[in-house]
Amino acid sequence: MTEPAMNGAQVLISTLVELGVDSCFMNPGTSEMHFVAALDRVPAMRGVLALFEGVATGAADGYARVAGKPAATLLHLGPGLANGLANLHNARRAHTPLVNVVGDHATYHKQYDAPLESDVESLAGPMSGWLRSTTRSENLRGDVEAAVAAAWGPPGKVATLIVPADVSWLEAPTPGPVTPVGPRPRAVDGDTVEAVAKVLRSGECCGILVGGRATRREGLVPASRACNASGAKLLCETFPANLDRGAGIPPVERLGYLAEFMVAQLEGLEHLVVVDTHVPVSFFAYPGKPSYLVPEGCQVHVLAGGEDDAVGTLAALAEALGAPADGATLQAAGRPEVPSGTLTAQAAGAIIGALLPEGTIVSDESNTSGLFIPGETAGAPPHEWLTLTGGSIGQGLPVATGAAVAAPDRKVLCLEADGSAMYTFQSLWTQAREGLDVTTVIFNNGSYAVLEMELSRVGAEAGGPKARDMLDIGRPDLDFVSLAKGLGVPARRATTCEEFAEALARGLAEPGPVVIEAVVGRIF
Amino acid sequence: MTEPAMNGAQVLISTLVELGVDSCFMNPGTSEMHFVAALDRVPAMRGVLALFEGVATGAADGYARVAGKPAATLLHLGPGLANGLANLHNARRAHTPLVNVVGDHATYHKQYDAPLESDVESLAGPMSGWLRSTTRSENLRGDVEAAVAAAWGPPGKVATLIVPADVSWLEAPTPGPVTPVGPRPRAVDGDTVEAVAKVLRSGECCGILVGGRATRREGLVPASRACNASGAKLLCETFPANLDRGAGIPPVERLGYLAEFMVAQLEGLEHLVVVDTHVPVSFFAYPGKPSYLVPEGCQVHVLAGGEDDAVGTLAALAEALGAPADGATLQAAGRPEVPSGTLTAQAAGAIIGALLPEGTIVSDESNTSGLFIPGETAGAPPHEWLTLTGGSIGQGLPVATGAAVAAPDRKVLCLEADGSAMYTFQSLWTQAREGLDVTTVIFNNGSYAVLEMELSRVGAEAGGPKARDMLDIGRPDLDFVSLAKGLGVPARRATTCEEFAEALARGLAEPGPVVIEAVVGRIF
Repeated sequence: MTEPAMNGAQVLISTLVELGVDSCFMNPGTSEMHFVAALDRVPAMRGVLALFEGVATGAADGYARVAGKPAATLLHLGPGLANGLANLHNARRAHTPLVNVVGDHATYHKQYDAPLESDVESLAGPMSGWLRSTTRSENLRGDVEAAVAAAWGPPGKVATLIVPADVSWLEAPTPGPVTPVGPRPRAVDGDTVEAVAKVLRSGECCGILVGGRATRREGLVPASRACNASGAKLLCETFPANLDRGAGIPPVERLGYLAEFMVAQLEGLEHLVVVDTHVPVSFFAYPGKPSYLVPEGCQVHVLAGGEDDAVGTLAALAEALGAPADGATLQAAGRPEVPSGTLTAQAAGAIIGALLPEGTIVSDESNTSGLFIPGETAGAPPHEWLTLTGGSIGQGLPVATGAAVAAPDRKVLCLEADGSAMYTFQSLWTQAREGLDVTTVIFNNGSYAVLEMELSRVGAEAGGPKARDMLDIGRPDLDFVSLAKGLGVPARRATTCEEFAEALARGLAEPGPVVIEAVVGRIF
Repeated sequence: MTEPAMNGAQVLISTLVELGVDSCFMNPGTSEMHFVAALDRVPAMRGVLALFEGVATGAADGYARVAGKPAATLLHLGPGLANGLANLHNARRAHTPLVNVVGDHATYHKQYDAPLESDVESLAGPMSGWLRSTTRSENLRGDVEAAVAAAWGPPGKVATLIVPADVSWLEAPTPGPVTPVGPRPRAVDGDTVEAVAKVLRSGECCGILVGGRATRREGLVPASRACNASGAKLLCETFPANLDRGAGIPPVERLGYLAEFMVAQLEGLEHLVVVDTHVPVSFFAYPGKPSYLVPEGCQVHVLAGGEDDAVGTLAALAEALGAPADGATLQAAGRPEVPSGTLTAQAAGAIIGALLPEGTIVSDESNTSGLFIPGETAGAPPHEWLTLTGGSIGQGLPVATGAAVAAPDRKVLCLEADGSAMYTFQSLWTQAREGLDVTTVIFNNGSYAVLEMELSRVGAEAGGPKARDMLDIGRPDLDFVSLAKGLGVPARRATTCEEFAEALARGLAEPGPVVIEAVVGRIF
């Protein structure tokens, strides 16, 4: 008996699975029903449903940052893609490998300009590092292979594959063997390493700025060795995709979000060695202030770009500098005391630092409320820190969701600001549905506090009542306990340190999703 | 004493207000802080804050459909725009006039590829009928005038104006007088009217299909007169932007959503006269079924396109056919009985028909649960029906929100499906904040029921457990009472006709927003 022929959707899913892409975060529609139907034909593919596309794309990002391999998404036509773009933007900035499958109308149907017709390619382009529309079922397998290869990079990319409905439903040829794919970084360039080593040995004031894949332990150790051997300052990009930190891991100084902070951190540098990241620029422009923040006269040396083997290159640099194998600075263990009394953002940070379990994956979109948390958790047991790479808020909850799918045996802690939480709050439902082990802390200060700060930087006229009202999200108060309950996730509100510590300890101890609404004041 | 000079943001807002655009639905960020700050300088502009951009764009659409003039939006860079695109898609399909203001990085900042940088024009293009980036503050006033004029059309358009931060903050010249703008439809074309009248007099089987501006009472009356004078069948597009209906208004048969229904409705027609709408095509493509649904051999005659005076042309057609002034069919008054017992989607429709107040604005995104509601409300007092024009779900709650801003003295009834509600549920918070008089009915059937139907149409293999699980949104159950409470809106759950009737009567009688969760089964 021969296997019945496959249709395009079945080939698509089979090929993804054969290439190791076996989780798909989705919010499908009619044009994707053949993909959905094919899930039963390819049992190895896990489908994870989201109530909103921004949850699906953000979860795929979080999954890949933790699993170290791409997930797929499945989105419905132009509008469904549009709803997922903000978190694809963040994934793009994180250099996350992601296979973004977007259904489209049947090839012959597009000419009729039906109500849901739109220019999917134009929408996908800005957030995609690779983009292709499959026009024939026969091409699907090759196109999927190309998409997965492009996603891997390096640098990792959002690879968008647009699949018309008829390409999904028509019979496709029986697949042959696939070409295995994975990251193939460019080999260490000895000349560049030697040139940078020479700069670092010069005695001039140097800094090494790491990002991308160099923020994991295997990159931080040689970076720290190189700094210690040369006297250079070790810095990290503002928003790393996945930063290893905690006791026993080399500590790094993250560049600040505000340009003033970044300027102070970079002041006096004569050489800045850049490893798999962008040169420092201001997040936003401000009247009369510079956008390019490398100090005047400071030379920039790119040790490794996005296509390079950043980790291997750092190791080679440490060797070239004669750094001893154990020459890295390692963070000492240490936890803050648990404070008492009225809960504040700083006190919450201390409590998190006191309780954070080893191996926790932290998805951090706590914004202004989170200012103190990195300091308070610096000496906690080793953990991973996932940040808002592209600045498009609404990322923390979805990334936590995807991270928990990728690491079912580990604890995920999501640190979330109130305003940001409301963009993709639907994530909690997926967490409840999948039984994901995520403890979410929502810092409720009733305000777009970061914008309050930005408004005050705009100028003297800024403080009018109508303007301030546009930044006030405490009218009416958001009740995150009710919101979480509505999505099937148990929740508690904490207004004192004691309540917060008890709720956090319980959340971290018990499996499954839970929300803690931390009622805090604004920090400035 | 002279007025201090204005900056670009102040000129932008002043110009909008001078041109009659005095409501702005927004979710701003740092690059829009000068716009926000300028709100206090131009008191006539009303700022309405949304927690998510899809709420802002959908509300601007709903506002314009009811106010009959454009609203503005204010969105933050590419990702903020992206979050608003799905409802801009619906607005585009509704031919809604809308001035879509998108902040961008300062002109000189874009080169640095800061984290939030993206190609805003590429993202905006597919959903915009007009698109411009302002590059200098001096151009802002003219660009705003052009945007408002383009938005008016006809046809109404989404006019996207991209405003870099420095264009907002730099001083702009003192504005001169503005050129008033408004819709300027192309005048009635007598030859076309005569040619269509001749077709209608031919004795062959004819239909008149109305859409766009012809679905208001002033278009429906002459359309009905023309049909009665000629024996033609009166049809309406599937998803009108704003349909006048109820007792005393000419009833129209809306084309069905499913191609099979549409085929049956159009069967036998030899001529189809099209007024300000698209020729009938299938919403989606299906294997082996046609996309173009005009019967074979049926001639299509475009009486009025989007740029034409559709209402005046219909009046001229009625005159050309010698239709008497009182020759329109008017819907007889009549309400269904209030049923009792377990609540069903059909019973809910009857209760809505029994209670609907005169002048209600209905925002209908009830999808499969709403199948019976148009029939049950046909003889209710006159009301307006706003539908899901572009098929991108998540539109009903925002459109209701904007409609209530436009018509504070009228009742808004939002009919919402559970799955669709979850895309833009944040709308309720804006309703609470603004004290909007919206009664929202959420039909909770625990399923993407329309997709269940579509999945069953896909083929025999479709019904596997993994596939069905991707359409099941009852695991866990969504608790809309808690969700509404979390956003500051009181809510009740109804599982019987008695509970639903009482809750609806109270919601319609009392001012302010309220949610009724109607627990119903799937209708098939």
